[in-house]
Amino acid sequence: MFHSQVFLRCWKKVSFVDAKTGLYGVFGDPVGHSLSPVLHNWFMRRFGINGVYMAFAISADRLQKAIQALPTLGFVGVNLTIPHKEAVLAYVDHCDLQAEIIGAANTIRIVDNRVDAYVTDADGFVLSLHKQQQRFHNASVVMLGAGGAARSIAYALARLQVARLAIINRTYSRAESLARFVRERFQLPDTKALPEGEQLEGLSSADIVINTTSVGMYPYTSESLVKDPRVFHNGQLVYDLIYNPSATRLLHDARRNGAEIQNGLDMLIYQGLVSLNIWRQDTYELRAADLQELRQVLTQELAAHE
Amino acid sequence: MFHSQVFLRCWKKVSFVDAKTGLYGVFGDPVGHSLSPVLHNWFMRRFGINGVYMAFAISADRLQKAIQALPTLGFVGVNLTIPHKEAVLAYVDHCDLQAEIIGAANTIRIVDNRVDAYVTDADGFVLSLHKQQQRFHNASVVMLGAGGAARSIAYALARLQVARLAIINRTYSRAESLARFVRERFQLPDTKALPEGEQLEGLSSADIVINTTSVGMYPYTSESLVKDPRVFHNGQLVYDLIYNPSATRLLHDARRNGAEIQNGLDMLIYQGLVSLNIWRQDTYELRAADLQELRQVLTQELAAHE
Repeated sequence: MFHSQVFLRCWKKVSFVDAKTGLYGVFGDPVGHSLSPVLHNWFMRRFGINGVYMAFAISADRLQKAIQALPTLGFVGVNLTIPHKEAVLAYVDHCDLQAEIIGAANTIRIVDNRVDAYVTDADGFVLSLHKQQQRFHNASVVMLGAGGAARSIAYALARLQVARLAIINRTYSRAESLARFVRERFQLPDTKALPEGEQLEGLSSADIVINTTSVGMYPYTSESLVKDPRVFHNGQLVYDLIYNPSATRLLHDARRNGAEIQNGLDMLIYQGLVSLNIWRQDTYELRAADLQELRQVLTQELAAHE
Repeated sequence: MFHSQVFLRCWKKVSFVDAKTGLYGVFGDPVGHSLSPVLHNWFMRRFGINGVYMAFAISADRLQKAIQALPTLGFVGVNLTIPHKEAVLAYVDHCDLQAEIIGAANTIRIVDNRVDAYVTDADGFVLSLHKQQQRFHNASVVMLGAGGAARSIAYALARLQVARLAIINRTYSRAESLARFVRERFQLPDTKALPEGEQLEGLSSADIVINTTSVGMYPYTSESLVKDPRVFHNGQLVYDLIYNPSATRLLHDARRNGAEIQNGLDMLIYQGLVSLNIWRQDTYELRAADLQELRQVLTQELAAHE
């Protein structure tokens, strides 16, 4: 089978690594289940880029050396994921304004010997909304979580000009601290932390609910931060950044109660596309058919891991 | 076309980069026309290895940092080519005996945080001889050139138990110096440098002539170190390490005068296979059909560069 003509034809078509191939990747720990290699190598093929994207398991204590290795080895760029997004800022030569404001970076671009940092999560979130974007204007939003992802989403919400943002977090003081950060740094004055007693009312009256935590993620799929699903209702949008499972307990509950739902797969796709456009200084776009195929490819990849 | 079912099937078959993919490569300067990425990525597919092999343009002054980056980034291994084969020995933790004797390395393997050096040129040469190997036993050999490649070939010739070795080099003192090195280090006592006056006679009486220099290589294809083709004759084997063009002026002259000829393509293939077996601690072998296909793939790649 290997030597069949069909294979040879395929092989030539996609035997894409040669001496000119550019190297991209993701640094994380753990990184063994990252979807980014599949996502970005799909982009490379789709857009005819001579590049390969690899996963690098880099522990926190090796991050500085690993960043310094990038210009030495001639990488084009890398993504950063847990636990490097904040720490990396200490090791770069230049930081994009948005990354500086958010205080985290997920994209490194090498230009000559300079290491530049960018963040693409907020842009990825906005692009993932497609036509839903207009719903955010003047909306009342409840966000679950106050970690790194929450900060990027809050930045995006400020840009989308939501009317108000309420933050729910298991540790209340972290919600308060993020709320203060958002008011001061992102110019979203009507931002507050929601104490436990106001959460039911807050969720019920929200136009949009966004989960930025990992609660409900595989394999703990029966968990949800919202204990009473009756807060969800028709006309609401419930967005969960989790994409595995494709519908979390939270999204199931929301849908059953009439809300519209969206998972995190498109945000994953678009934050990657924005990284690619930074590395390539280009404006690649996805057509509807591309997005459809990519969702399918990533979903298959997720299924293969379980 | 891109979205056709045929492409999708192909894509899935060879969309081989995921979060578990191992990284291999070659360090050189220049490295932009290296065939190694095509060669090794073909091996990866053929043997079902989840790996990608890339070319890295590393200047001499960055070699040490680049070698140090290998364990940091979790590379499996790299090859070294011009100008790093000798210099690298100063930057590794452990050196294989053969590499130590030859004084050069072309293969680096990373084990945990240790950087080990090996050389595979001599083994690659021996494997490339196939059934011709027996011709070398007790043969009289003339070798053109006294550089790094010549040293590895001389090591192989000693192992093949040739009777005598005569070295021809434009700078006579370098031929003398290599001859001394071979006598002392490789235990091939009947090794000498051939002064200009004895070269015609030496070439005429040789059973085997090997060119280890770059004279005759593309684009200077009309050149040859052997000015009088009448030294070649029936019963002789003339081997040129050059593979581009596939037959150098030297090989053309030799064939026209009845000698058997071989170019350097199989040696390129086999030194790569030996590197792969070192990295993988395995014993991959090429079948006749594999070798045939690989020669074709590499020849096409060469043609694409011209």
